[in-house]
Amino acid sequence: MKALYWDRSQLRLESSYRVPSAEEKSALIKVHLAGVCSTDLQIFKGYMGFKGVPGHEFVGSVVEGPEDIRGKRVVGEINFACSNCNFCREGIARHCQARRVMGILNADGAFAEYVAVPLANLHLVPDGVPDEAAVFTEPLAAAFEILEQVQVSPNDDVLILGDGKLGSLCAQVLRLASAHVTVLGKHKEKLALLKKAGVRTVQQQDWRPRRFDIVVEATGSAAGLETALGAVRPRGILVLKSTVAENHQLSLAPIVIDEINVIGSRCGLFPPALEALRENRVSVTALIEKVYSLIDGVDAAAHAAKAGTKKILLRA
Amino acid sequence: MKALYWDRSQLRLESSYRVPSAEEKSALIKVHLAGVCSTDLQIFKGYMGFKGVPGHEFVGSVVEGPEDIRGKRVVGEINFACSNCNFCREGIARHCQARRVMGILNADGAFAEYVAVPLANLHLVPDGVPDEAAVFTEPLAAAFEILEQVQVSPNDDVLILGDGKLGSLCAQVLRLASAHVTVLGKHKEKLALLKKAGVRTVQQQDWRPRRFDIVVEATGSAAGLETALGAVRPRGILVLKSTVAENHQLSLAPIVIDEINVIGSRCGLFPPALEALRENRVSVTALIEKVYSLIDGVDAAAHAAKAGTKKILLRA
Repeated sequence: MKALYWDRSQLRLESSYRVPSAEEKSALIKVHLAGVCSTDLQIFKGYMGFKGVPGHEFVGSVVEGPEDIRGKRVVGEINFACSNCNFCREGIARHCQARRVMGILNADGAFAEYVAVPLANLHLVPDGVPDEAAVFTEPLAAAFEILEQVQVSPNDDVLILGDGKLGSLCAQVLRLASAHVTVLGKHKEKLALLKKAGVRTVQQQDWRPRRFDIVVEATGSAAGLETALGAVRPRGILVLKSTVAENHQLSLAPIVIDEINVIGSRCGLFPPALEALRENRVSVTALIEKVYSLIDGVDAAAHAAKAGTKKILLRA
Repeated sequence: MKALYWDRSQLRLESSYRVPSAEEKSALIKVHLAGVCSTDLQIFKGYMGFKGVPGHEFVGSVVEGPEDIRGKRVVGEINFACSNCNFCREGIARHCQARRVMGILNADGAFAEYVAVPLANLHLVPDGVPDEAAVFTEPLAAAFEILEQVQVSPNDDVLILGDGKLGSLCAQVLRLASAHVTVLGKHKEKLALLKKAGVRTVQQQDWRPRRFDIVVEATGSAAGLETALGAVRPRGILVLKSTVAENHQLSLAPIVIDEINVIGSRCGLFPPALEALRENRVSVTALIEKVYSLIDGVDAAAHAAKAGTKKILLRA
């Protein structure tokens, strides 16, 4: 099959990569669409030391697997867990210490014609949700993860740092929980989209620092963290949403002095995201920049890496 | 009066410093004993840019103030709040944005013969508690602060990094909430004291990394944080207890990947600490290294700055 391959120094198109075999309790998925995520771009900078087929945001249809789901459209959670360890038994298989992670850690991902995914990770896509929306399930679930970790009250004053893909999804999801969500961003057009969703927006140059109850760092930049720390109220909550490969140089004294609660937030469960897509409670397709063919995947990744680019999709 | 004075470059003894006046709603305290805290040592490295009389751990007796407390032994909370702002009204005056902090921010402290403290900050010392124990109220309250912020379950596996003064107090306080408290430290003698208090102890060279539900960073070193991050279980809690002036160089990716909850923790309320001292539930006087006379305060501070030194006290 055709697949993009990252060999730890270069991303290239392989034209006859081995089709994965759907092992026991797994299904083989024909990928329809896959999304390029900032984490992929971090991987191309060395994050996780990954080698293989990247890609963890996808929608596809089952070609091999149990009869009841064959031919059905599916999306898949990205953490392939052991189902036996303490974390799996506690219900947080996402933290399984033996996990493989699709396109990130010891498991080939979805920048390919086919991908193998454990059955436990698959979710059917509701009929009314088009592929172009379903492909956002994974990052949307990551945004919903915040609501699993933090109790957001309707009156909480919330700031999202970053108007990128993740920032936009976080803003829309938090807007479901609180009426007071502000996004601080750089891009007029992206902020305009968010305004339509009932979110307050501020452009960088108009920013006058003030303190929020909850701040979500979704810029993916080291500088964002410093801004974030300065924008959380004492005893407030700072959610770290972006994984950044490089080191930060920062003083942690503000965290102690203001007794800030910093919460790392990674993958979320898919059902709330699929439900929100089905009900059109969040708007995702406006976040698409361009759909590339898989065979142009190297160009697509380069495009995605340009600052300010919205979501790049690959059609397999 | 005699007082130690920090002029932002040097600590010196002043022999005729102006006796503070007990303004309205304040009391003038004759200092009996004051403790040198790691935060003082950070101040002597530039922390907070403080200038004035340092010292925020003290016990003394009221010489000017309302009749009902005159002559009584008192300790004092260190945040001098406005009592009008949102934080004061929310009951967290410790986070008052207009606050002065004794010996740390815009308020002279207790390394002097006399100190002025707002009445709202004063607490009577129970009769059975000697000065040598009462002087630990402030750092002990800071240890109790953890229990105000974090729900510690009896079965939680807790690690304290650091066997210094703060580490020891945190260990003893957390031991009241959980049966499983381990201290990782460097000093055989200090660890032996903790062992008596029912705390498990590990010396640095015997440390085999494993993951804890709750980790408290109390080493006051930049390196401690990295160890701490590696010792928290996914979805676990990392309490930052030490204020470190210098910047850290670190990757925040582990916080996101393991969805760690990092909680900054500073000053606590005094009543739980005084109650614990009254009931002898924690042992503090064993933490005293040496009592200096105030006039030898410069030497005392130098002694306190030596690695491994236990609590240095000043007798005014």
